[in-house]
Amino acid sequence: MVVFNKDADPSQYQQIKDLYRPGHADYTYAQKYGIRDYRGGGRSSGRETLARVAAGAVAKKMLEAHNISVISYTLSIGNITAKSINYKEIEKNPVRCPDKQEAKKMEKLILGLKEEGDSIGGIIETVIKNCPAGLGDPIYDKLEAALGAAILSIGAIKGIEFGEGFRCALLRGSENNDSFAVDKKGKAVMKTNHAGGILGGISTGDDIIFRAVIKPASSIRKSQKTIDTKGREAEIRVEGRHDPCLCPRAVPVIEHMTRLVIADALLAQRLSRWS
Amino acid sequence: MVVFNKDADPSQYQQIKDLYRPGHADYTYAQKYGIRDYRGGGRSSGRETLARVAAGAVAKKMLEAHNISVISYTLSIGNITAKSINYKEIEKNPVRCPDKQEAKKMEKLILGLKEEGDSIGGIIETVIKNCPAGLGDPIYDKLEAALGAAILSIGAIKGIEFGEGFRCALLRGSENNDSFAVDKKGKAVMKTNHAGGILGGISTGDDIIFRAVIKPASSIRKSQKTIDTKGREAEIRVEGRHDPCLCPRAVPVIEHMTRLVIADALLAQRLSRWS
Amino acid sequence: MVVFNKDADPSQYQQIKDLYRPGHADYTYAQKYGIRDYRGGGRSSGRETLARVAAGAVAKKMLEAHNISVISYTLSIGNITAKSINYKEIEKNPVRCPDKQEAKKMEKLILGLKEEGDSIGGIIETVIKNCPAGLGDPIYDKLEAALGAAILSIGAIKGIEFGEGFRCALLRGSENNDSFAVDKKGKAVMKTNHAGGILGGISTGDDIIFRAVIKPASSIRKSQKTIDTKGREAEIRVEGRHDPCLCPRAVPVIEHMTRLVIADALLAQRLSRWS
Amino acid sequence: MVVFNKDADPSQYQQIKDLYRPGHADYTYAQKYGIRDYRGGGRSSGRETLARVAAGAVAKKMLEAHNISVISYTLSIGNITAKSINYKEIEKNPVRCPDKQEAKKMEKLILGLKEEGDSIGGIIETVIKNCPAGLGDPIYDKLEAALGAAILSIGAIKGIEFGEGFRCALLRGSENNDSFAVDKKGKAVMKTNHAGGILGGISTGDDIIFRAVIKPASSIRKSQKTIDTKGREAEIRVEGRHDPCLCPRAVPVIEHMTRLVIADALLAQRLSRWS
Repeated sequence: MVVFNKDADPSQYQQIKDLYRPGHADYTYAQKYGIRDYRGGGRSSGRETLARVAAGAVAKKMLEAHNISVISYTLSIGNITAKSINYKEIEKNPVRCPDKQEAKKMEKLILGLKEEGDSIGGIIETVIKNCPAGLGDPIYDKLEAALGAAILSIGAIKGIEFGEGFRCALLRGSENNDSFAVDKKGKAVMKTNHAGGILGGISTGDDIIFRAVIKPASSIRKSQKTIDTKGREAEIRVEGRHDPCLCPRAVPVIEHMTRLVIADALLAQRLSRWS
Repeated sequence: MVVFNKDADPSQYQQIKDLYRPGHADYTYAQKYGIRDYRGGGRSSGRETLARVAAGAVAKKMLEAHNISVISYTLSIGNITAKSINYKEIEKNPVRCPDKQEAKKMEKLILGLKEEGDSIGGIIETVIKNCPAGLGDPIYDKLEAALGAAILSIGAIKGIEFGEGFRCALLRGSENNDSFAVDKKGKAVMKTNHAGGILGGISTGDDIIFRAVIKPASSIRKSQKTIDTKGREAEIRVEGRHDPCLCPRAVPVIEHMTRLVIADALLAQRLSRWS
Repeated sequence: MVVFNKDADPSQYQQIKDLYRPGHADYTYAQKYGIRDYRGGGRSSGRETLARVAAGAVAKKMLEAHNISVISYTLSIGNITAKSINYKEIEKNPVRCPDKQEAKKMEKLILGLKEEGDSIGGIIETVIKNCPAGLGDPIYDKLEAALGAAILSIGAIKGIEFGEGFRCALLRGSENNDSFAVDKKGKAVMKTNHAGGILGGISTGDDIIFRAVIKPASSIRKSQKTIDTKGREAEIRVEGRHDPCLCPRAVPVIEHMTRLVIADALLAQRLSRWS
Repeated sequence: MVVFNKDADPSQYQQIKDLYRPGHADYTYAQKYGIRDYRGGGRSSGRETLARVAAGAVAKKMLEAHNISVISYTLSIGNITAKSINYKEIEKNPVRCPDKQEAKKMEKLILGLKEEGDSIGGIIETVIKNCPAGLGDPIYDKLEAALGAAILSIGAIKGIEFGEGFRCALLRGSENNDSFAVDKKGKAVMKTNHAGGILGGISTGDDIIFRAVIKPASSIRKSQKTIDTKGREAEIRVEGRHDPCLCPRAVPVIEHMTRLVIADALLAQRLSRWS
């Protein structure tokens, strides 16, 4: 697979070529490498996620052969949160939210912020369905660790939580433990899924559920205080083709990164039973 | 380094040897490997963290040579949260909380739960001080990804967030971006640290701050519904030497895992400037 | 870097699509993957070495900045061996041999075999000049191991030896050890280089010298006994654009693989001194 | 597994603590790390091979479950070469040679050299029996590359060759290609095994055969010219408990390293067929 970047337009970056953009990787890259590529974020540009999606498309075919599906969607943007989860709605609205009503509110919020020259963060939820029990490694490569590394490697993601996630801090063991029972077919089931489908780093067979938080886009038109590459204080307004909310574009990236991790775990699982 | 496990006492596990403990790795391990070791959790026991702490002790020496320090502490247990952060208090109370007053409340809460045969979750915060700018990789091995994988590989951790973390979803770019300024010595500084010391996956030179959530201990004396290894419904009470809150023991594990990641990043950074 | 394969011509393979070619990877690939791609060797085609040479071109730039040079050449083909080593001759003759006279004999031998429909093996020698002392890892990733893996990963290579190589079996320690002395500038030197520039898996600072053997090309026009994909005995003649001797084409592949290993070792060496 | 090194005796090294031993890793380690541990070779001591043998013992159990066996033996020492290969003889003589008669000559040669204060090199051959077809990776991790790296990572090994090995240079394709035929049971067989059981980096199902050369032990009592750690010329005689020939001790190390590689390849092979 080869994709040619035919729509590059570095002209917008010309005017800020000597200014570090707050919230961006400009400053840290210059500190790390001692060089500066001001055009479109250079190596730290979100364009690199293209390779992740391309590889994820291969993983998707593997997972489909096992009836495993991965669905990501915008759960919340600012203080607006999906109240219902209808997978069919996701691709029908521009914010990729599974709740038709809240999607409209999210869209309105974003358009208002675009007008203002500001941006907003959000939370993306992912559900892995029909994942067999037994995926993930017992110690260092627990399924949460593998998924965590994959998702946190995506630009602008600042946190991830599985199942009850940070709410776990408030729960008692008697509330958070998922009891086992036997269903009508005699199969072991858990009636709740506080664990988010992972126990001891290994999949339970239930839906795997996690949420990732994405920070508000760093590129805003509003005036910000910054410094230039010579270390003098300055003011900056970041113009160009920037999204006020990264959620809609991050949804497929998270979805495909998740597929890559599950495909890896599925392959690794073949090695865990020696016969 | 060799540590001999001289205090093993599998006798308590005898009575639950055929029962899957809810919230534990028993069931998933059996699903993964097709074998069951009921004694103390077997391979999934928290005892494995000893190796992490041993290795972290070596990393600590490396970091000390660079004046980098890592401090972890219990930020909250249940709905009790440290209001002040005084590092000197951490090792003075049994819950490893930096707030003397709240530490007492946490201790009381835990002792009450012990009485009840229940447990509680918590949040552990980590601060890396004096970490140079430039650590971390630009794409797949971002510093958040490396720290995320390390921390999420510790048993019972169900989430991690950096800087503002999940609160990012609510913030505007103009609120979340850290502006640059020049201090009296002419050095570039950021007046805020919403980013938690990492931009574009690379350290800014500011304190690196993250929080991890640990679920309530799964081993509780309270009666729970479960199934046995033959798939029949049953009831279980987990006796033995179990902590009602994992925070105090997890603090040093998180601290040392963090050191290992930073020591790796420091070594890798040597390779990023070619001369 | 993208290279388009514009000269593919699978037509010659049509007639042998059901026959396993002796000496080729056809049979083993079918055994491994359960599928067969008869066109040009499929995945096992020497065309894959293009990527190695492309990457090696980057490594070459790195090494040049350190004045390290890597030179590979055809040392022998059949029973004809270079008697003199003149680097300037290498690219002046079609067999890439550093000895003008022997090169002519080699060429004549190859053209005769082409006529006959047969092929011949050879030995390629590589010299790494100006490599600093200290490269290579002490235990598992010794410089011989890293170079060995890189060179043996090239198709048709069946052996590698460093310095005296297999002749070591015949030598006494008093003959094979390289004595140290002090040169006129007071620098430590070794008067001999039986070790081929590597001691204990680590470069000595002397020229690193190794030889790799390449088997005779498997594709020959001469009739051979074989079986077809249905397991029936058959006869095969491999037509197409095949070289009777792989040496000339393998020289740059070995040279670039060597550069990649040395560039890696050079980067790793930055990590070995902690300050 | 823990092994305590109870027989350490660094006293013999006291007198040569400031002298670089020719042929040893002393000088290169000092160049690499800037430190010197003169006691018994320090990190480069052959004692590290203990860990390889311990791990290989686990791999052996895995391979036995698949009826795969690995046999290494001393093929030649100096100019004495086994003329017959009788596996039962290997552990019956101190040089681990499969030929009873030649073993005696080898022993005599070694004892003579011990008297003289000199040493001798040798060749160790390894045969992997009953290895299934399909092991090994197509490109970078060919079975020759994986075995090569494993064997060349053992101290004092200076070369490895598979099947015909360096003799390939002299052969024509029509001589070196192994023709396929059908045996009485209708199974595909090769009548010869010039390839040493590997084609295209993947096992053919035939015996895998390779030879490694080990240099004469560097520690000799004979006087040698050297330099001291301050760069002054000096003379050295290496006393202590040294073997004049490394073959007998290297045989089990090579055998176990081979097992580790084959066990890895066997596990990896499970991943190559997707169903």
